[in-house]
Amino acid sequence: MTWQACKALMLAMVAASGGVARADEGMWLLTSPPLETLKAKYNFVPTQDWLQHMQRSAVRVGMGGSGSIVSPDGLVMTNHHVGLGAIAKLSTKERDLLKNGFYAPTREAELKCPDTEIRMLWETQDVTDRVGGAVKPGMNAAEAGAARRKMISQIEKECQGDAGFRCQVVTLYQGAKYHLYRYKVFNDVRLVFSPEEVVGSFGGDTDNFEFPRHSLDMTFFRLYENGQPYKPEHYLRWSPSGAKEGETVFVFGHPGRTRRLYTVDHLKFLRDVDLPDRLARYWRTEVKLQGFAGRNAENARVAQPDMRSVSNGRKVYTGLLAGLQDPALMGAKVAEESELRSFIERDGQHAQEWMGAFEAIASAEQGYREFFEERATIDAAVAGSKLLGRAFEIVQLTEELPKPSNERLREYADPALPSLYVRLYSPEPISEALEIEKLTQALSLLAERLGGDHPLVVKALAGQSPRSRAEQCVRGAALADPAARKAMVEGGGAKSGSDPMIQLAAIFDPRSRELRKLYEDKVESVERDAYAKLAAARFARAGESVYPDATGTLRMSFGTVRGVDRDKVPAFSTIGGLFARQAERAGEAEFTLPARWMQAREALDLSTPYNFTADCDIIGGNSGSPTVNARGEVVGLIFDGNIYSLTGDVVYNGAEGRSISVDSRGMVEALRKVYGAGALADELTAR
Amino acid sequence: MTWQACKALMLAMVAASGGVARADEGMWLLTSPPLETLKAKYNFVPTQDWLQHMQRSAVRVGMGGSGSIVSPDGLVMTNHHVGLGAIAKLSTKERDLLKNGFYAPTREAELKCPDTEIRMLWETQDVTDRVGGAVKPGMNAAEAGAARRKMISQIEKECQGDAGFRCQVVTLYQGAKYHLYRYKVFNDVRLVFSPEEVVGSFGGDTDNFEFPRHSLDMTFFRLYENGQPYKPEHYLRWSPSGAKEGETVFVFGHPGRTRRLYTVDHLKFLRDVDLPDRLARYWRTEVKLQGFAGRNAENARVAQPDMRSVSNGRKVYTGLLAGLQDPALMGAKVAEESELRSFIERDGQHAQEWMGAFEAIASAEQGYREFFEERATIDAAVAGSKLLGRAFEIVQLTEELPKPSNERLREYADPALPSLYVRLYSPEPISEALEIEKLTQALSLLAERLGGDHPLVVKALAGQSPRSRAEQCVRGAALADPAARKAMVEGGGAKSGSDPMIQLAAIFDPRSRELRKLYEDKVESVERDAYAKLAAARFARAGESVYPDATGTLRMSFGTVRGVDRDKVPAFSTIGGLFARQAERAGEAEFTLPARWMQAREALDLSTPYNFTADCDIIGGNSGSPTVNARGEVVGLIFDGNIYSLTGDVVYNGAEGRSISVDSRGMVEALRKVYGAGALADELTAR
Repeated sequence: MTWQACKALMLAMVAASGGVARADEGMWLLTSPPLETLKAKYNFVPTQDWLQHMQRSAVRVGMGGSGSIVSPDGLVMTNHHVGLGAIAKLSTKERDLLKNGFYAPTREAELKCPDTEIRMLWETQDVTDRVGGAVKPGMNAAEAGAARRKMISQIEKECQGDAGFRCQVVTLYQGAKYHLYRYKVFNDVRLVFSPEEVVGSFGGDTDNFEFPRHSLDMTFFRLYENGQPYKPEHYLRWSPSGAKEGETVFVFGHPGRTRRLYTVDHLKFLRDVDLPDRLARYWRTEVKLQGFAGRNAENARVAQPDMRSVSNGRKVYTGLLAGLQDPALMGAKVAEESELRSFIERDGQHAQEWMGAFEAIASAEQGYREFFEERATIDAAVAGSKLLGRAFEIVQLTEELPKPSNERLREYADPALPSLYVRLYSPEPISEALEIEKLTQALSLLAERLGGDHPLVVKALAGQSPRSRAEQCVRGAALADPAARKAMVEGGGAKSGSDPMIQLAAIFDPRSRELRKLYEDKVESVERDAYAKLAAARFARAGESVYPDATGTLRMSFGTVRGVDRDKVPAFSTIGGLFARQAERAGEAEFTLPARWMQAREALDLSTPYNFTADCDIIGGNSGSPTVNARGEVVGLIFDGNIYSLTGDVVYNGAEGRSISVDSRGMVEALRKVYGAGALADELTAR
Repeated sequence: MTWQACKALMLAMVAASGGVARADEGMWLLTSPPLETLKAKYNFVPTQDWLQHMQRSAVRVGMGGSGSIVSPDGLVMTNHHVGLGAIAKLSTKERDLLKNGFYAPTREAELKCPDTEIRMLWETQDVTDRVGGAVKPGMNAAEAGAARRKMISQIEKECQGDAGFRCQVVTLYQGAKYHLYRYKVFNDVRLVFSPEEVVGSFGGDTDNFEFPRHSLDMTFFRLYENGQPYKPEHYLRWSPSGAKEGETVFVFGHPGRTRRLYTVDHLKFLRDVDLPDRLARYWRTEVKLQGFAGRNAENARVAQPDMRSVSNGRKVYTGLLAGLQDPALMGAKVAEESELRSFIERDGQHAQEWMGAFEAIASAEQGYREFFEERATIDAAVAGSKLLGRAFEIVQLTEELPKPSNERLREYADPALPSLYVRLYSPEPISEALEIEKLTQALSLLAERLGGDHPLVVKALAGQSPRSRAEQCVRGAALADPAARKAMVEGGGAKSGSDPMIQLAAIFDPRSRELRKLYEDKVESVERDAYAKLAAARFARAGESVYPDATGTLRMSFGTVRGVDRDKVPAFSTIGGLFARQAERAGEAEFTLPARWMQAREALDLSTPYNFTADCDIIGGNSGSPTVNARGEVVGLIFDGNIYSLTGDVVYNGAEGRSISVDSRGMVEALRKVYGAGALADELTAR
């Protein structure tokens, strides 16, 4: 059977199942796990204690990664690529931790990260009724949206409590349910171990999302509280034997976003507008960064985190767009939606209300086309340079802080401020050369997209070329100093007046707010309401077997350790395979192991499992999640999916989509025999 | 003085001079050289004999390169990167001439290129009156355009004569003048020498458009006629001493296109619509080709010519767009146009007619915005795959050939057919893997740009994903065989019916024709007429000192050998500098000399000049042009411009823009001491 034929069949099966989760599909809330499926398929019934243990062992790392606590002394396991930003911020031209790796054999040698925040989900509560109750009869969609946002801010603020905790209301099912999450937050996070980048991302962009794979994509941090290693109530034990082919495994992590419940019209917006626009920016940035990095070694070093991020994102969205452009996938989605529509019509009772929801979403997305490009361009430009992004936050903070908390833009409400300040005042080093490059790119992007005579472009360039203007703003940016940023915010913006970067940011603020309001009123609010209706229809049809789309919050996935039969790709790679892959691509930088690996080769057990695949349902944000067995013991560390999994944003592909983990045995073998990190290996494997 | 300040000053000077060529500006017709300037500045008066000698020594190589005849036995000198396509077509997995270079020590060893055509400009004639006379009173712009096109076809056909000649009417000054060019055409072209690609393009994308530079960007072909080396009446002698700093030099070549006479509104279309669209496609293609090439060595080999071409084009258009986004450059253009407008108003007599031309162009470009993206996307998709491009030509030929020659689309008129057939029936090897990749890219581009539900996209994909459809069309393409292509054309398309690639091409044909007609009627015809008026205004104001924009036809530039003072960059690099540059970028593939260079190092005179710069006015298409001294002797070989020259498409930058040549002395030194090609060096330097 060809790939196409097989895929078509698989998708037909997806369609036939009618939108109900099947096989090992699903990113489940820990508060409503798929008990029947687990019992029926795996004869496994998770207890409340087990779920609570996993909830407090799994953590969120930084803005978008996962991790887990793996020792009684607060050791946190995550991916090298999740820790990459933090490791880069600890690196200098002289001490290049990305290139050379790092190991702290003692607590004293551990390096404090400038701005890494790790969160543990402490407890959750359903606040759907309170949020829904804020909407009064007669409100239109925009008014209802504003009322909900205000209520959410209020709930978050009331919840706050102790300084070490943060509260967040999570929107589930695109608006059908709202849960309040309370996190314990750690800001004293120290680097314990990371391999060389070439080992962590062995094979680079070429092998990314491929299998067999040979990456030791791991990093260890340690949580500190009051200057001492944190002593957690819950942490994960190391499996003494590792995973076996056919074994049931679980993944606990923070999948970032899926859009599986989107209507077909909404998916078409993704396919025809959002993704082409996003990819065009990725391609542009990737080529420009390569040019910058190619100029000299120091440029290459400082651009490394951006380059990793952009090549990864480009591959993710390329896979997703390819899926959406495949008539088989879209056909399956159409069939699935037809069945839901039929159910709604058969149901009768809510037919008019629920069917109208499809139309409301289609119409909102149609309207969004009119200002999508302008909004995406301005957002991308502002986020394109670190200093401009910060200046923009300072400009907005200055405007927002005097307002009551629940009337502010949500990211500036009181509960959000501590985390915002950690990032905003981070003492991370900033490369002037890279900032000039990125701001030049951002300004020329504006001109390319909006046209050279657009008033915003004319104002932003102020009569100069993009590069000249970028040089002026970056070189003149007082806010490059964290203390100056703090003074600007605390002085209510008073001390920022003469900073050219602040002036530049202020140019974007009014139009950015207008476009945001337009989006919130005409798109988001309408869709919240419409998706809540469609979720009600799905619940009526399939009950608990509908899981919410991923929202960057804690979820459980499960599945079986297995390869891809059709491609005859086995479930495990080995350390021996790593050396073989290096030989196969001799001379290529991304496949060249450091000297310490070559020296350790004799000592290593080459048959040690190194990476493995399972059919767990994961997506970006799951990186760094622990893969555990039914006893909750660590058998692996999620770091990637295979190429077939890239359509996971919109549909789960159980036939060929695979999560990829670093094998717990490979991790320990490398720590002991390559890195002389026996103490760390002992800490992990102690029972 | 900062770069910005200096550039602003320079541009102000451009503006102040009011559109009259100054300093060493200009790509001059050999029929109207700037005699006064040459006399005044260089005390040099070219004779008719000298110009005729240069005209018949300079040749056009392939579709868009330059070259020159440099021996009595028909040796042609051009760039490695101009010969790249031909060299790649002579390469196989086993015999990789790009990687290893090539030298034929005997005539017998020379390799015949599958489809390289070299043209020598035999004679020219002004046919402005005949073309203009085709337009009858009362015709609207579209009718006038059609009448002119029909007359041009007729003139070309009448001119044809001997089989070894081709005629072409060239549109000068965007439509103010028409010249008939008659070329002698060579199709038996054989490869004599080319260096390894890494030597030809030393420093790759990083050093491209930079100086100091260290590229031996040369290749030698030989012209054959009736199976024997061609004995030319004219050929260039080698200078015994090479060029000196401060010396006057001349460049004879085929600059591809400039748009210096464009109105400001037309330039804004370039800045805001055309270039952003074009660059977005370059970025996309570059990233996708890198992914393809990264998969294995054979992919890398077959993708090499495309990758070179796309990274080069990307750099060219990036530089041009940066210039257009610089308010200083656009301000200078506005000032220049204001002066022309003032002149027109002062002149009075033609004021209404001439002033209306500005408005007509602005309005045509505004209208073009409405269908530009669709047209650019379809054109790019069709040209994106070699096999699809050929299928498209077969489809169009089938439709056009039955019509009378001067009623056909111009590229299918009788005079154009011989060259078209050489390309269309070329036996060059075609990589199935690369074709599938490129067609996949082309089909997904269509879907990205036009949307997945666009009728053309739905038809083109035929219910499959872009990749699956590409596999089907490429694997099923009978026309991959040159004999099958010939049979299809000669059978009037009758034998092409079941070829899936032909079916795919046929889907694009109708809409492509509609959009072309729309462009010709609403944009091109209007602008031809309007620019003819503006050219009349410029002539009235500045007489012969206005040269026409580049049109891919033979021109003469001139200038002085010099570096860039402001950057303290000298005019010459040396062979010693080549080794130093390698040491500086140790370990990078694009900076790693082959073993034979390392072995020859001792024997080489490291002080030999290797590359040099001059302020000659050149642009893409000039690649491969001879740089000659006032005696017409070869002192160098144009292969690039510096980064400042990249705005040359719209404005000449005499202050910092530089042409870059391989030095004639470096060429001979390398031939003798690195490549053991003494016989070739002797042939070049014989007096």
